Amino acid sequence: MSEALDLAGEAGKLDAADGLAAVRERFVLDDVTYLDGNSLGALPAHVPDRVADVVRRQWGALRIRSWEESGWWTAPERIGDRIAPLVGAAAGQVVVGDSTSVNVFKALVAAVRMAAQDGGVGADGADGADGADGPARDEILVDATTFPTDGYIAESAARMTGCTLRPVAPAEVPSALGDRTAAVLLNHVDYRTGRLHDLPGLTAAVHAAGAYAVWDLCHSAGALPVGLDEHGVDLAVGCTYKYLNGGPGSPAYLYVRRDLQARFDSPLPGWNSHAEPFGMRPGYEPASGALRGRVGTPDILSLLALEAALDVWDEDAVSVAAVRAKSLALTDFFLRCVGEYVPGGRVESVTPAAHAERGSQVALRCEDAGDVMKRLIERGVVGDFRAPDVLRFGFTPLYVGFADVERAARVLARTLDAAG
Amino acid sequence: MSEALDLAGEAGKLDAADGLAAVRERFVLDDVTYLDGNSLGALPAHVPDRVADVVRRQWGALRIRSWEESGWWTAPERIGDRIAPLVGAAAGQVVVGDSTSVNVFKALVAAVRMAAQDGGVGADGADGADGADGPARDEILVDATTFPTDGYIAESAARMTGCTLRPVAPAEVPSALGDRTAAVLLNHVDYRTGRLHDLPGLTAAVHAAGAYAVWDLCHSAGALPVGLDEHGVDLAVGCTYKYLNGGPGSPAYLYVRRDLQARFDSPLPGWNSHAEPFGMRPGYEPASGALRGRVGTPDILSLLALEAALDVWDEDAVSVAAVRAKSLALTDFFLRCVGEYVPGGRVESVTPAAHAERGSQVALRCEDAGDVMKRLIERGVVGDFRAPDVLRFGFTPLYVGFADVERAARVLARTLDAAG
Repeated sequence: MSEALDLAGEAGKLDAADGLAAVRERFVLDDVTYLDGNSLGALPAHVPDRVADVVRRQWGALRIRSWEESGWWTAPERIGDRIAPLVGAAAGQVVVGDSTSVNVFKALVAAVRMAAQDGGVGADGADGADGADGPARDEILVDATTFPTDGYIAESAARMTGCTLRPVAPAEVPSALGDRTAAVLLNHVDYRTGRLHDLPGLTAAVHAAGAYAVWDLCHSAGALPVGLDEHGVDLAVGCTYKYLNGGPGSPAYLYVRRDLQARFDSPLPGWNSHAEPFGMRPGYEPASGALRGRVGTPDILSLLALEAALDVWDEDAVSVAAVRAKSLALTDFFLRCVGEYVPGGRVESVTPAAHAERGSQVALRCEDAGDVMKRLIERGVVGDFRAPDVLRFGFTPLYVGFADVERAARVLARTLDAAG
Repeated sequence: MSEALDLAGEAGKLDAADGLAAVRERFVLDDVTYLDGNSLGALPAHVPDRVADVVRRQWGALRIRSWEESGWWTAPERIGDRIAPLVGAAAGQVVVGDSTSVNVFKALVAAVRMAAQDGGVGADGADGADGADGPARDEILVDATTFPTDGYIAESAARMTGCTLRPVAPAEVPSALGDRTAAVLLNHVDYRTGRLHDLPGLTAAVHAAGAYAVWDLCHSAGALPVGLDEHGVDLAVGCTYKYLNGGPGSPAYLYVRRDLQARFDSPLPGWNSHAEPFGMRPGYEPASGALRGRVGTPDILSLLALEAALDVWDEDAVSVAAVRAKSLALTDFFLRCVGEYVPGGRVESVTPAAHAERGSQVALRCEDAGDVMKRLIERGVVGDFRAPDVLRFGFTPLYVGFADVERAARVLARTLDAAG
């Protein structure tokens, strides 16, 4: 009990000193301790009115005029420019639209085509190695621990470009790279364990091997610094409904580094990426810039909900550095509370202890994790379960406080006690 | 003037006798004569409250629980089943998600793979003709007059499956078909001229050649009977923001005929189409049924706005046959009013006069069409301009009346007079 009081008291002090505490007011929250923002971010309080305006005025009253007057047509690149600073990218390199899976496909196929071009072979690897200096680059490496969809889509990208796909653990990428490697698809933060991978180091290794690095930022963007430009990442994708709070299934984004844009050869060259989309020309001629990553008509309701959600960052001048500092403090504190409250041996953290290797979530291996999570949710602590045995808790620094963290650990201990 | 009075009087009588007139009340309309529902359907009046509930309660209060409790996860196939009867499909064959362009890619690649399978050759045509009875099926035919995105995407699908792409006018498809034809991509209604193509006849011809028919229903679904099941169409795609009034950029749909679903081999095998999506298994195993056409996390705001919009059809028990009858009456009346009001030679209809060849729009070729449309819009008649010289007017029978039609023709005549 005294430990609990101490930790609760400490949580109060940490919250009082939290420079981001006021940002919480910008979200719709309740008595629930919501630690699932790494799956679906909470609703920013001003979003409902903005969505209502999009529906009632922009669609209902202006109708077709809104494509121009309400800025619908340019939303994918305009909102891309809002996400860019959050992932360390200068403007003009991020475009929003489609799902993460679809963007993985665009990015990987484009990367393979760039590699083929570098080697002097034809697109799609179809021409073999003739005329090239070395062997054809016909292998894609994929994070063996990836969120499954990246692996499934990489398999399809490999199949359709005449490549083979090799799953390797991120740590083994440097030794797996070779002169046949065309592209490498990696996750910045592992969706299950919360492990943060070494984006600068791995990107440099991929480049040293003459290949292209494609990063999936789903579990890092909005939670920690990414530094796409600084580290020379080639292509990146990410979702917007986790730490960016864009809403359920809100559109994903694609980053194409500026100097690669002219060589970005999309496998999904829809009319939105045409140099003159309303020219209705039979021949495809790609637009320049990030918008070359667009495909079909953008999904306006979801896009503009996301755009509104991103105001949270601007209006409070929230910095990613401050978010990262709080994220580490939250996960540190959670691990400490769990250590103090939970009987030994009942849970085991699979999230790295080292800050340099930790994202913004904590994953605890636990017997009957599925049932335990159900009971936690009944008691007002919402995380999620990931098969086969992981309790996953995400910490969104914009709206999670230290008292939430202490409560979650306390309820977890009580739940495990009751089950024991 | 007497003619104008006659036609205005006749419009009044036609509106009074219109069995669908009451449906208009279910939409948000104003003094504008809105003849651009073939580009963006008007807002159904009950949609804003439904969207507000999705945002405030489902996202804001239930958050992650809504994936199950609010039916988010199953929305793509549930809403597919709402669209199915509108395109003549039994349940379980339509899934909603992604853009039309992305769905064209899925459908065409899957069709080519089916054709390769039929011929005994490997997927993607990579294995050549070995072991096959005839030559490899390595040609895709595409409507030469198609909305451009279908052609661009078909080019990519051809490139990535080792096929060649041949654009042919729809009428010439029967003579262009051969034993190398793998798949044919056609538009049910031409986006520019409004010409309705012979879906039953062309599908039968494609089948007689041993190939697969993929139909784009963007400009027909919701305006006229399609009869996918009845006519044995293999695959079809369509958007939902035109005659289905789903909202700007609302997700598209994909139809895969039931007996082909087990062979539907998607080029975009995202985790949502996995047999056990939350098993998080590294190997891809496709789900059965239409949901095999899913890819990534569905875009919930836009999907559920669409679902709400489809209530217009249910609550009033609106039949596609009644919609089609009114559509033809509207376009007939428009052509008659234009003929009476507009000075001879100033416009020329490029929309077929025969009902069997007409969709739900009228396209008028006109000098300075871009400027003329601008002035029409200033005068409250909204159609659109399609390069190089077409004034396009769409007639959504759910909310366009005969008085609108008469007014549009009258304002057009006045606008051309003023310009003359």
